[in-house]
Amino acid sequence: MPSKKDVIKDLRKILGEEAVEDDDLVVRMYSKDAVYFEGNAIAVVFPTSTSQVSALLSYAYRNDLRIYPQGSASEIVGSSTPAEDGIVISFNRMNKIKQYSTVDMYITAEPGVRLVEINEFLAKEGYTFPIDPASVKSATVGGAINSGAGGMMGLRYGTMKDAVLGLEVVLPDEKGTVLRLGGRTTKHRVGYDLIRLIVGSEGTLAVVTEATLKIVPLPENTVNIAAFFPSLEDLANAVVELKKRKFNLYITEFLDSYTVEKTVEALKLKIKGKGNMLIVSVDVPVEAADRTLSALKEVMVSNNASSIIEARSLKEAEEKGIFDVRRGYYPASIRIAAEGRKDPRTRPIVYVEDISVPPSKMAECVRKVRELAEKYGIEMTLGGHIGDGNLHPVLWFEEGDEEKKEKVFRFIRDLMQLAIDLGGTVSSEHGIGTTKKEGLIMELEANKSEKALDIMKEIKRIFDPKGILNPGKLW
Amino acid sequence: MPSKKDVIKDLRKILGEEAVEDDDLVVRMYSKDAVYFEGNAIAVVFPTSTSQVSALLSYAYRNDLRIYPQGSASEIVGSSTPAEDGIVISFNRMNKIKQYSTVDMYITAEPGVRLVEINEFLAKEGYTFPIDPASVKSATVGGAINSGAGGMMGLRYGTMKDAVLGLEVVLPDEKGTVLRLGGRTTKHRVGYDLIRLIVGSEGTLAVVTEATLKIVPLPENTVNIAAFFPSLEDLANAVVELKKRKFNLYITEFLDSYTVEKTVEALKLKIKGKGNMLIVSVDVPVEAADRTLSALKEVMVSNNASSIIEARSLKEAEEKGIFDVRRGYYPASIRIAAEGRKDPRTRPIVYVEDISVPPSKMAECVRKVRELAEKYGIEMTLGGHIGDGNLHPVLWFEEGDEEKKEKVFRFIRDLMQLAIDLGGTVSSEHGIGTTKKEGLIMELEANKSEKALDIMKEIKRIFDPKGILNPGKLW
Repeated sequence: MPSKKDVIKDLRKILGEEAVEDDDLVVRMYSKDAVYFEGNAIAVVFPTSTSQVSALLSYAYRNDLRIYPQGSASEIVGSSTPAEDGIVISFNRMNKIKQYSTVDMYITAEPGVRLVEINEFLAKEGYTFPIDPASVKSATVGGAINSGAGGMMGLRYGTMKDAVLGLEVVLPDEKGTVLRLGGRTTKHRVGYDLIRLIVGSEGTLAVVTEATLKIVPLPENTVNIAAFFPSLEDLANAVVELKKRKFNLYITEFLDSYTVEKTVEALKLKIKGKGNMLIVSVDVPVEAADRTLSALKEVMVSNNASSIIEARSLKEAEEKGIFDVRRGYYPASIRIAAEGRKDPRTRPIVYVEDISVPPSKMAECVRKVRELAEKYGIEMTLGGHIGDGNLHPVLWFEEGDEEKKEKVFRFIRDLMQLAIDLGGTVSSEHGIGTTKKEGLIMELEANKSEKALDIMKEIKRIFDPKGILNPGKLW
Repeated sequence: MPSKKDVIKDLRKILGEEAVEDDDLVVRMYSKDAVYFEGNAIAVVFPTSTSQVSALLSYAYRNDLRIYPQGSASEIVGSSTPAEDGIVISFNRMNKIKQYSTVDMYITAEPGVRLVEINEFLAKEGYTFPIDPASVKSATVGGAINSGAGGMMGLRYGTMKDAVLGLEVVLPDEKGTVLRLGGRTTKHRVGYDLIRLIVGSEGTLAVVTEATLKIVPLPENTVNIAAFFPSLEDLANAVVELKKRKFNLYITEFLDSYTVEKTVEALKLKIKGKGNMLIVSVDVPVEAADRTLSALKEVMVSNNASSIIEARSLKEAEEKGIFDVRRGYYPASIRIAAEGRKDPRTRPIVYVEDISVPPSKMAECVRKVRELAEKYGIEMTLGGHIGDGNLHPVLWFEEGDEEKKEKVFRFIRDLMQLAIDLGGTVSSEHGIGTTKKEGLIMELEANKSEKALDIMKEIKRIFDPKGILNPGKLW
């Protein structure tokens, strides 16, 4: 490997002066993620084209240089930070929407485009890209693809694996080979599905330089309801009844009573209601709004909801703050974590966990997760996408508090085991990164499918024979 | 490799007497598919459990025996027939629905269960599995997974790749390793997505022994319309307007005028209407049926539809025969092909082609496909899923008519080139099999992505190092 100085010089030759940054402060900024994982890059580069990325990967291959592709680094499992030394590729300057068609229902964008930009752009046409991770305002197309992101509409629209029609990627090989996979059509059956192998691969197989995403019309109207239940079982039974009555649910979210109380308090929200909170949206034309809302209320009331807030439209739902608690419990947790520090000079470290269980197991799961938190004596908020069974417990500790950190880590281990025991999964939409490697093994072992890991490692070698792409992640 | 006699003896020991069939007539029956591809197996086996499949694959691996997994063999690209000698695995006896939950929205079934059985079973609960290939009555779960099947609801629900939550598969290795991948939840992010690598792999990577599929509620109501257009451009413009007006289309099918005429005639259908036919279904609650139907009619009329048939419900649509032409044009083509034979002792060979183009290119594509058929002087019917751009030209020739066969093959080559030129794909939901190998190469070359094929071949070697699983397919 050439010296750091030579590498910087070479990179400037390949990418241009202003595309290479080796200032310590800047490099450190790009070596951190949203939680606290921090790595050790020697430079950050800002390519502007696929051919620059190709030249970069070819150079990296020939010189055994490690490469860390990065979007907004808003993932929270340590998958976007440089685990060892190497070059961070930032896609800040590959941020153009290149093409779109509402007739053909796709949008093509560079990896640095943020999901929120896509949706602001499409909203003018009445269309949307329905994968909406909580980080939607910062998350980029490339990052969402690599982390296999999901969101509130997972039950209806799945996750990124269900939303990518075409990819342009660059391989970390001698030539920096560019591959164009898939296309613009929903149906595409040309050999093995390499697109979905790359979706969720956490930047370890290839570098995404362009993506074509499937878009859908925005619903004409949604009716929305928030209901509060003294008992978690009653809330879960309400969800069971919704499914039995064949509601085609658009959004189905929940928070447990402790989380509602703490979030309302921390963020000084106006919303009234106590207990476990269920939020349901159904997309129906205005003519059917009343009937649908009545039917929803009936389900809530017959399952012992203590109070109900209803909204005939999304606008009314926003005015009444129906989604505020759900959106707010992560920021509220950060505030609670910050305020609870013993030493105000330390950082609060906040973990968002990400298991799934079959929705029918959600009440049991939440009860057991609460017991776990009590057992370890750690504070926790939790809510999630109850429609698709995805639960996000949020936990925190103060930087330097090794005892608490250890407790949080043991909690997470038990949480993953619980998910497996209930027929669920250790990671739903955040991925493995550096924090869930143990979970990956646990789940494969529970399924007696350890050989799947060998297969994954061999696939990695096909795409990245020198192991230079985002090393240290997944296993 | 042991002798045929020894193989049969060994198989009987492993699977039981009545699970192994080497009668010539039976073996030949299982060596054919729905078109006319015929292979050369030495036996057919009927396992009843995963452990039997595992023992079988282990035996096959140790004895270099080729294995051809087979569902209903209703695929039409030659992917299910034994290309060389070897053993056909029929899943006729692994045909149980094992578990399901409308709350958790999944159904788990053995590979031999037919899709129609799944849907008859789910209909009682008001749910459905929305991937509905034309062969839905015979197509099996295992076959649909391996061929990556699609159908009329592709625009809304995608294809099999969007519908499989979990898989149990057996690998063709020393031990016949059983892998359990994925699970029951929509969200699942545990390492690389091996499930979607196997979906659409045409039985070349692993043998599916169980699948968990994502199910959805049946719509409460659909409104349906069939409109006839003198001009193809007008029909296409109507579709453009539907998308612009943000209809959330449930089904969007079409047939060109020649096909409508020939199908109505061949099947003696009652439906009245001449010209290019567009069929649209939108799922809306009853309260919004009138407004939706009016809006749909408005779009049709303003784009010069000459006649319109409308139905306020699916039942009414069936009574009025709205879908009969669409469903009938393949059987009608078979009848036309049979009746047009010069020698009644020969078989009519009917090909269903399967390209996609972006829907905005559909009118141009159909016009050019008609020109191609004229150029080669071959008869052709055609229709397709205009909502997602998937076009199915149907062509035929008489067995033994080498000149016509050659013309059909040259037509197909030009058709695939046309799809590529219009930004589409050579295969949408049927796959590559033995008939589209050239198309696979053409498309990869057009995208300058030949290396994708090398990657696919290396992936094949990981799963199937001896190349014993469905050899001769894909490349």
